[in-house]
Amino acid sequence: MAEKCVNIALIGFGIVGSGVAKIILEKADHISRRTGLRLVLRHIVDTDLVRSRPVAVPEGILHSDLDKVVHDPEVQIAIVLVGGTTVAGEIQKRLLAAGKDVVTANKALLAERGDELFEVARTHGRSIAFEASCCGGIPLISSIRTGLSANDISAMYGIVNGTCNYILSSMFSEGKEYGVALKESQEAGFAEADPSLDVNGADSAHKLAILALLAFGQSINYDDISVVGIDQVNLVDVNYGKEMGYVMKLLAIAEMASGGLTLSVRPAFIRKNEPLAQVSGPFNAVSVFGDAVGHTSYYGRGAGMMPTASAVVADVIETAHGNTGRLFAATPGLGRPAEAATLCPAEEIQSRYYLRLTVGDQPGVFARIAKILGDRQISIASCIQHESKSSDSVPLVITTHCVRQGDMDRAIEELAAMVGNKAEPVCIHVLSPPCDGQ
Amino acid sequence: MAEKCVNIALIGFGIVGSGVAKIILEKADHISRRTGLRLVLRHIVDTDLVRSRPVAVPEGILHSDLDKVVHDPEVQIAIVLVGGTTVAGEIQKRLLAAGKDVVTANKALLAERGDELFEVARTHGRSIAFEASCCGGIPLISSIRTGLSANDISAMYGIVNGTCNYILSSMFSEGKEYGVALKESQEAGFAEADPSLDVNGADSAHKLAILALLAFGQSINYDDISVVGIDQVNLVDVNYGKEMGYVMKLLAIAEMASGGLTLSVRPAFIRKNEPLAQVSGPFNAVSVFGDAVGHTSYYGRGAGMMPTASAVVADVIETAHGNTGRLFAATPGLGRPAEAATLCPAEEIQSRYYLRLTVGDQPGVFARIAKILGDRQISIASCIQHESKSSDSVPLVITTHCVRQGDMDRAIEELAAMVGNKAEPVCIHVLSPPCDGQ
Repeated sequence: MAEKCVNIALIGFGIVGSGVAKIILEKADHISRRTGLRLVLRHIVDTDLVRSRPVAVPEGILHSDLDKVVHDPEVQIAIVLVGGTTVAGEIQKRLLAAGKDVVTANKALLAERGDELFEVARTHGRSIAFEASCCGGIPLISSIRTGLSANDISAMYGIVNGTCNYILSSMFSEGKEYGVALKESQEAGFAEADPSLDVNGADSAHKLAILALLAFGQSINYDDISVVGIDQVNLVDVNYGKEMGYVMKLLAIAEMASGGLTLSVRPAFIRKNEPLAQVSGPFNAVSVFGDAVGHTSYYGRGAGMMPTASAVVADVIETAHGNTGRLFAATPGLGRPAEAATLCPAEEIQSRYYLRLTVGDQPGVFARIAKILGDRQISIASCIQHESKSSDSVPLVITTHCVRQGDMDRAIEELAAMVGNKAEPVCIHVLSPPCDGQ
Repeated sequence: MAEKCVNIALIGFGIVGSGVAKIILEKADHISRRTGLRLVLRHIVDTDLVRSRPVAVPEGILHSDLDKVVHDPEVQIAIVLVGGTTVAGEIQKRLLAAGKDVVTANKALLAERGDELFEVARTHGRSIAFEASCCGGIPLISSIRTGLSANDISAMYGIVNGTCNYILSSMFSEGKEYGVALKESQEAGFAEADPSLDVNGADSAHKLAILALLAFGQSINYDDISVVGIDQVNLVDVNYGKEMGYVMKLLAIAEMASGGLTLSVRPAFIRKNEPLAQVSGPFNAVSVFGDAVGHTSYYGRGAGMMPTASAVVADVIETAHGNTGRLFAATPGLGRPAEAATLCPAEEIQSRYYLRLTVGDQPGVFARIAKILGDRQISIASCIQHESKSSDSVPLVITTHCVRQGDMDRAIEELAAMVGNKAEPVCIHVLSPPCDGQ
């Protein structure tokens, strides 16, 4: 088979961009042997032309003029690694309009303005590939879109933010308080100086919006995702969970039930023998449940220069083969319109819960609590109250069976207002994944 | 986008075939919505026309005449779910020659006669897809071929046989002897009445041959794989491993080192915090290490009617889109020739080992053992000898650092012949995966 030449422009020469350039420049022969494609980097566009990067760039290809790419008819694929949701979108639109297929890792842009960009791609007969936008190097998007294409997906649970997982792992394993664990993860280079988009759950929600579109074939409104970050997580709850056989993780959750789709990001307890519970440090993993395939799970590094670059270059290869274009055209929400997702009303969402109440150690308190829960049809699955020297305020921890969120919300209001209650009740989701008989 | 009609023939209407028919017949609308493809089952060919199957088949499509498929110009894709390595191969060749793309789950056939079949496909400009041949529903082949295509893969470790994993899991967790665990797995339906191809490692070796071809882009001779099954595994070793923080799994192992490729199937100890160690019961999982992506891992059901059917139908969809054909053409060893793999000479393979010696509890024995190992440059990493009432024969368990297999083989000969040795030494591989800093 004759080698096929593929001309590429890279827009954005930051950390991931450097990794991508490194692979394309240094592994061109390897990639040619394995795929029959000769990747040729014709342009690297960045505003910073002087910073040192960990890759040697051939003379003349690094410049700051996007127009040169737009007007270079030889360029077939533009890799856009520019962050943010404004300029980055305009760049992608210009390149699509100029007839280039786009490969990107920008999850915020696709989550918030995906519909608009996909429509531009459609209009111009081009495609956008974005494996690198979710979970770095894990081939997750391709697994969901092609590997599981014969399945109705019933649920998806993801540890999709390495920073949060690193912090929660060190709280769980080393008993660190949140603030200490955050500081150490910054020192270790796993959290940004400003970690807010990670710890507040927004980054996970961006990834969930993209994954849910592909898993359910329905158009997702990013703002419909209910998001709780890890910034309010208390070590005492991590430890109570551990005592009961649970590990706390920040999860991106999508569940399809008869009432509709539920999308949320929140700290949640997972039973310790679930594959996701074992994922520690900066690693990511996503469990996907299909009606035919049952439980599948995908694990790897969710960020970093080379893992993310691995996914970007895989997309370039698939785009050059023409496979991305065919898949893009055939996929609802990308190359053709998708119905809007029908969301399950918040009140109706079924879930298990962990409750921590802080109560006076007095006769009758437990009875009052049990009555409030019982009146709302909330059934107690387990409970812990350790002996305490203080009768003033004692933690009482309860896990429930599956209950309606509306019932739980009202029970919590009543518990908060109850005589004998000493502090705001803490309520944490307990994962109950579909049974796959392990 | 107009719906595209795809005419399909299914050859082999056994368990997996029934699952495939079920998905194609019952989920045609779902698949059309998600992919733009209308799958139409025109023929089901089987010699048994009367057996009851868990799917309602439309009048007239079930028959026993392969010729009807060969001569039906409307059939684009033939799903061949016939076992064995003789007739199944001839059927595939006839269908390829008749211009049909083939989708199959037959691992033994591809591992032993893949080169021949791929050449026939090449000659006729057709493709063979085989996601379902390895690890059932896990989208493993597509992940290796496309998701990791920018990587040099350095190692791959797989739990690829659910029967063996079920047996080893119950030995590990419930302290069952091998014979008991095997019998129970047969009663639970996880092992065949004749389990030999599973427990002797041959099934795992078939899958390894296929995965290694794709991971390393080199042609693999199935007979080059060194295979040890689980039929000789002793509970005492599972328990000593557990005591040292290891879980025993039957692993399909491929490692690429400067000396060449190593391919083996064998029971091996994995450190208990590795993702693979957590895989229990009938589940499968494969860890793949790439130079850019680092450690990735893929988990799910490796067998069964619906999980395997999920992979078969995913292949049908990719074939119908044209993506399989493009990938097939571009992949060394499939659509174009591949170099033969350079194998690492057995003597030179580097590995860690677990050794169990049965020795007399007498002065000087340990010194003799330590000298034999030391003389061969074999360094001891840990050792256990429990106090014993008998001085007659005491188990001494040693783990080593990484050593040459040639040195270990000679040390074992000397240990077996040593004064004070009471039984054949037991030697088990200890996995030392590439570091990915978790």
